[in-house]
Amino acid sequence: MTALDRDALAARDAADPLARFRNDFELPDGVIYLDGNSLGPLPRVVRERVAACVTEEWGTGLIRSWNSAGWIDLPTKAGGKISALIGAEPESVVATDSTSVNLFKVLAAALALRPDRKVIVSEKSNFPTDLYMVEGLTELFGKGHELRLIEDPSKLPEALGKDVAAVMLTHVNYRSGYMHDMAAVTKSGHEAGALAIWDLAHSAGAVPVDLAGAGADFAVGCGYKYLNGGPGAPAFAYVAPRHQEAARQPLTGWFSHKAPFAFDHRFEATDGIKRFLCGTPPVLAMTALDAALDLWSEVDMAALREKSVALTECFIELVESRCAGLGLTLASPREAAQRGSQVSFAHESGYPVMQALIARGVIGDFRAPDLLRFGFTPLYTRFADVWDAVTHLEDILRTRCWDRPEFHARAAVT
Amino acid sequence: MTALDRDALAARDAADPLARFRNDFELPDGVIYLDGNSLGPLPRVVRERVAACVTEEWGTGLIRSWNSAGWIDLPTKAGGKISALIGAEPESVVATDSTSVNLFKVLAAALALRPDRKVIVSEKSNFPTDLYMVEGLTELFGKGHELRLIEDPSKLPEALGKDVAAVMLTHVNYRSGYMHDMAAVTKSGHEAGALAIWDLAHSAGAVPVDLAGAGADFAVGCGYKYLNGGPGAPAFAYVAPRHQEAARQPLTGWFSHKAPFAFDHRFEATDGIKRFLCGTPPVLAMTALDAALDLWSEVDMAALREKSVALTECFIELVESRCAGLGLTLASPREAAQRGSQVSFAHESGYPVMQALIARGVIGDFRAPDLLRFGFTPLYTRFADVWDAVTHLEDILRTRCWDRPEFHARAAVT
Repeated sequence: MTALDRDALAARDAADPLARFRNDFELPDGVIYLDGNSLGPLPRVVRERVAACVTEEWGTGLIRSWNSAGWIDLPTKAGGKISALIGAEPESVVATDSTSVNLFKVLAAALALRPDRKVIVSEKSNFPTDLYMVEGLTELFGKGHELRLIEDPSKLPEALGKDVAAVMLTHVNYRSGYMHDMAAVTKSGHEAGALAIWDLAHSAGAVPVDLAGAGADFAVGCGYKYLNGGPGAPAFAYVAPRHQEAARQPLTGWFSHKAPFAFDHRFEATDGIKRFLCGTPPVLAMTALDAALDLWSEVDMAALREKSVALTECFIELVESRCAGLGLTLASPREAAQRGSQVSFAHESGYPVMQALIARGVIGDFRAPDLLRFGFTPLYTRFADVWDAVTHLEDILRTRCWDRPEFHARAAVT
Repeated sequence: MTALDRDALAARDAADPLARFRNDFELPDGVIYLDGNSLGPLPRVVRERVAACVTEEWGTGLIRSWNSAGWIDLPTKAGGKISALIGAEPESVVATDSTSVNLFKVLAAALALRPDRKVIVSEKSNFPTDLYMVEGLTELFGKGHELRLIEDPSKLPEALGKDVAAVMLTHVNYRSGYMHDMAAVTKSGHEAGALAIWDLAHSAGAVPVDLAGAGADFAVGCGYKYLNGGPGAPAFAYVAPRHQEAARQPLTGWFSHKAPFAFDHRFEATDGIKRFLCGTPPVLAMTALDAALDLWSEVDMAALREKSVALTECFIELVESRCAGLGLTLASPREAAQRGSQVSFAHESGYPVMQALIARGVIGDFRAPDLLRFGFTPLYTRFADVWDAVTHLEDILRTRCWDRPEFHARAAVT
């Protein structure tokens, strides 16, 4: 038995300065939700705002709501709220499109700023869609660009030659939770003459981010994970103010035009970050994201990080003590400073173990080939939840319930 | 006085086989909504489905709903419903992204299928974002592609040289409502060796469309106009089955991968139309669109077109008789076969006239420099609405209320 017991953890919850935020979410009974890194849960305010958007703004306001309800400003309004969470300068973030589409835009803009360089450096373990977007862009370009993938963050220095146009990395790795030192990597990239593009999918709302302080050039991120904007919520794009004048992106839809309602047949890019918009924004989805972002105005990011580290440390310690000898291997950095807000463990039966956990209401997720992935979201995850999740995990591993035929019969119908 | 009077029109409504669909929409009291070509009104079923999606699927189902609520299939499910409305083959349409982004995809795919041809033919009067997307794509390409704009549909034959890769047109013009003969234009394009790309923004749900019958190669369209999918609803993309094997689009996000959850770092395009997806779909917006599309299963498109023509003919006749000498000039084709489901009139004071109409609850829209644009949507527009709208228009034009100071004072606060 560890020194951590359930009573001690419940006492930490009672003293938690962030505890009050849990009540801002709709969380189903009987569920311990450790998958907010894949889909954040429903904030109560979103349910109300979306209903009002549908019934009043769309239903009654109709076309007039583009102005009267401020729909037209949602991409910059939501973007402004996000910028506060990622250390971005004012008017440097828009909420728009998907993370993949936004990555295409900032990649194209970055490559155009470094026309004589043909290499994009990234990690083989990056979230695949980021790498796929590079493939799609560079194939379209047809100018001999190359994607140089490093196997390990320590290999970055030797990958940074004079041929590198951009270093494109996900700040916190989706599988392991490994967190890059954004300032140091950006500095290395700049010293090699390359631009730094950061994917903040697993960072925004999860860990403190300081894009401006790090000198980042471009960034993208996701609205539906730690930002709780709803399934498939609009993503965001960041462009450092120093690049906004020169940066051009190729998806030049009418929302990136200087005067979209003049309906001129020639394109003229608008000024500033709105240049990274494209078509008409999805108002229902954007309204949900914008409402979810309001939660953050009262969140102290230092307190959030402190609790995040405490939750993940606690989980690692409990799993390694209570599940010792049961086949789990830590697949996340042990050092808290190198870890985002998630913890992964490898297990040879990872898939059925996660199915068994989910059947008991402990929702994490599985990433092939063998990873059990658990997200710890300080706004609504309690220390007691960590205890209870480990209790289920330990019981599942000790009983090997997934080996029993009746487990599979039940799994097949859920 | 014309032979058409209000009683005669109310009698047509009483006999209208489509009249029952009006009750499927939430339409505010005191509003005559003639702007469904810009934003369709709220179908009742959408309000319910979105609420259930938010509260039950997201709130309670959480991440599990990707499978249990079928979120993962929404792009093809909604696409299948759209294909029935536009004469598309099975499994040839997906709902995804914005019209602009989808146009980028199909344009890139089309140009790749015609690598030796460098010209895209379109109309100067096309909806500007379509032209802007060509600019953005061809500038990125940097291979000397040219956008050749014709001033008038009659100029198409001389624009079709052996250098033309694609003819990209909007089937029904957003300003005038002019409707191309899709089959004839597609045939001309093919005879010149070019591919035909159709934008159905003002056609899908407005007029019968037969993509397969016309032999169209690619198409895109909008979810938030006649399809009533909600503000900024997901758009759609069509790829003719004969091109699906060879066509590649550059926005190669993980939803277009053969095995997205294998998380392989190399891209491998999936088969079929799903290749034209990109990132994670916006589920709330997609759910609204998918629900709105259910209305169409019982709509007879021939009856819809018949009523559409009758409404627009009636409007033109009433305006030209009752508002004769008041400065209006028909800016849409007089021939019904060349007209979509909208009518525009030019007026030198078009902007304040439309403001005055909207202040009275007659909602059309204004398109610079001088167009009053009115959409006639057979599912919920009544013949009596046409009479009442013209009554307001006539009164506004006779009284010139927009010349009075108090009009501007009121307009400033609305």
